[in-house]
Amino acid sequence: MPIPQKSVLRTRITEWKDGIASAADDYLAVEEPLEIRICGKPLTVTMRTPGHDRELVAGFLWTEGLIESVDEIVNIEPVEGSQKGNQIDIGLRDGFPQSIGEGRNFISASACGICGKASIDAVRARGLRPLQSNFTIDPEVLCTLPDRLRAEQQVFGRTGGLHAAALFGASGELIALREDIGRHNAVDKIAGWALLENKLPLSNYIMMVSGRGGFEIAQKAIAAGVPMLASVSAPSSLAVQLARELGLTLVGFLRGQRFVIYAGESRCVVKRKSAVS
Amino acid sequence: MPIPQKSVLRTRITEWKDGIASAADDYLAVEEPLEIRICGKPLTVTMRTPGHDRELVAGFLWTEGLIESVDEIVNIEPVEGSQKGNQIDIGLRDGFPQSIGEGRNFISASACGICGKASIDAVRARGLRPLQSNFTIDPEVLCTLPDRLRAEQQVFGRTGGLHAAALFGASGELIALREDIGRHNAVDKIAGWALLENKLPLSNYIMMVSGRGGFEIAQKAIAAGVPMLASVSAPSSLAVQLARELGLTLVGFLRGQRFVIYAGESRCVVKRKSAVS
Repeated sequence: MPIPQKSVLRTRITEWKDGIASAADDYLAVEEPLEIRICGKPLTVTMRTPGHDRELVAGFLWTEGLIESVDEIVNIEPVEGSQKGNQIDIGLRDGFPQSIGEGRNFISASACGICGKASIDAVRARGLRPLQSNFTIDPEVLCTLPDRLRAEQQVFGRTGGLHAAALFGASGELIALREDIGRHNAVDKIAGWALLENKLPLSNYIMMVSGRGGFEIAQKAIAAGVPMLASVSAPSSLAVQLARELGLTLVGFLRGQRFVIYAGESRCVVKRKSAVS
Repeated sequence: MPIPQKSVLRTRITEWKDGIASAADDYLAVEEPLEIRICGKPLTVTMRTPGHDRELVAGFLWTEGLIESVDEIVNIEPVEGSQKGNQIDIGLRDGFPQSIGEGRNFISASACGICGKASIDAVRARGLRPLQSNFTIDPEVLCTLPDRLRAEQQVFGRTGGLHAAALFGASGELIALREDIGRHNAVDKIAGWALLENKLPLSNYIMMVSGRGGFEIAQKAIAAGVPMLASVSAPSSLAVQLARELGLTLVGFLRGQRFVIYAGESRCVVKRKSAVS
């Protein structure tokens, strides 16, 4: 897959090394705002790396619980006259969602004051259900995924500056990979790809992300029906709590021949210490 | 400085290593929502790591251009009855800012359609001025900062899962360090600390951040008057563009005895290749 031209930008930099400075050309990961409109009405602006924008907006609508079926989408088009495709309009069959408004955010979704539990209740209220999947993966296969992810990150390879989310099958085969300056956007691009390809829910795949596994990433993975989420870094307390409540297998610190399972270890067939001692 | 109790959470995990799984206790970085209110009126919710919440909200108001002086702040108090201090109210002398509304966001700030340039114009419109500072730093001192940052990251040391922002003087002395699950929150905590201590603008310091240097981070650093921003990773195209327009020195890939200067190299006294060949 070639690197989308608009995802990288060449610029002049100064490199300092061992006491000596020299001028050179270098590549930057592009960051540009994207205004998402629904039926012509501005919804939000996200900073993203251009490329796979249709997937990004479709995935965003799905993982934020604003649509329940791909059939609700009539069209996804750049706004006429928008610069660099930085405004995109998504036409919905039923018009602008009535659920969008003050009633939809964290604050008023919680009757008990705001807390982590209220955040989890809020995403449950958006329709997030406990995951049902018989997916399992061999730990030895799991350990191969970080190297696969890095090898396939084309924009990262050029710029050293992008997050990625990738889907793998149980045998470690790469299904899809998307990159973005925003970790959550990379996950939305995967979800949107799956939505537009009629592949949701992603019950038979593991998602690997390049950065930390926070609440938002776990929530979006669950919304896409992914039963297992892995990263090379640490998850947050709230991501672990959400994973345990909704049956997401959550793996962190996946490096070399070691990883940590924070939730749902039954999907990772492991040999226990007690079994060999 | 001791680790704030509420910043870490102990949990039971399964560690897999070289084919064998074993149960263990581990520490997680806490992620909890924080609702920011102004004069009793909800403004926004951010996911953050508890600790230094007063600095976080004060810094947020400053770096987002909602206040122009610390004197505007009457008080900063947890909302009565809020769980874990997850709702905080900031009383302003002049009441809820009239500038908050549809007129303040990216979209309508740009007359020419939305693009990176419009984003920069939007933050300029919030009062961001070109940086004036005679700050310089020796490249050899600069190279010592990543190790200093890591050594001082107490919650990271316990959990492996937190971002940090730190201020250093020209001799490499640590001035302040804050950690958070969100990179932008760590920067806001530094800005808020400086605001409440009457130390703004931070013209004589360099800010080092643990993650990537995107547009939002560069914008917040400039808002705090920091003349130089460094990270161990890559900046985005828009961060570089903003830095060049407003005179921020931007350094990336600061690792070992190497770094890359993307903007404002005059603040980093470097020996050029041409001078020695």
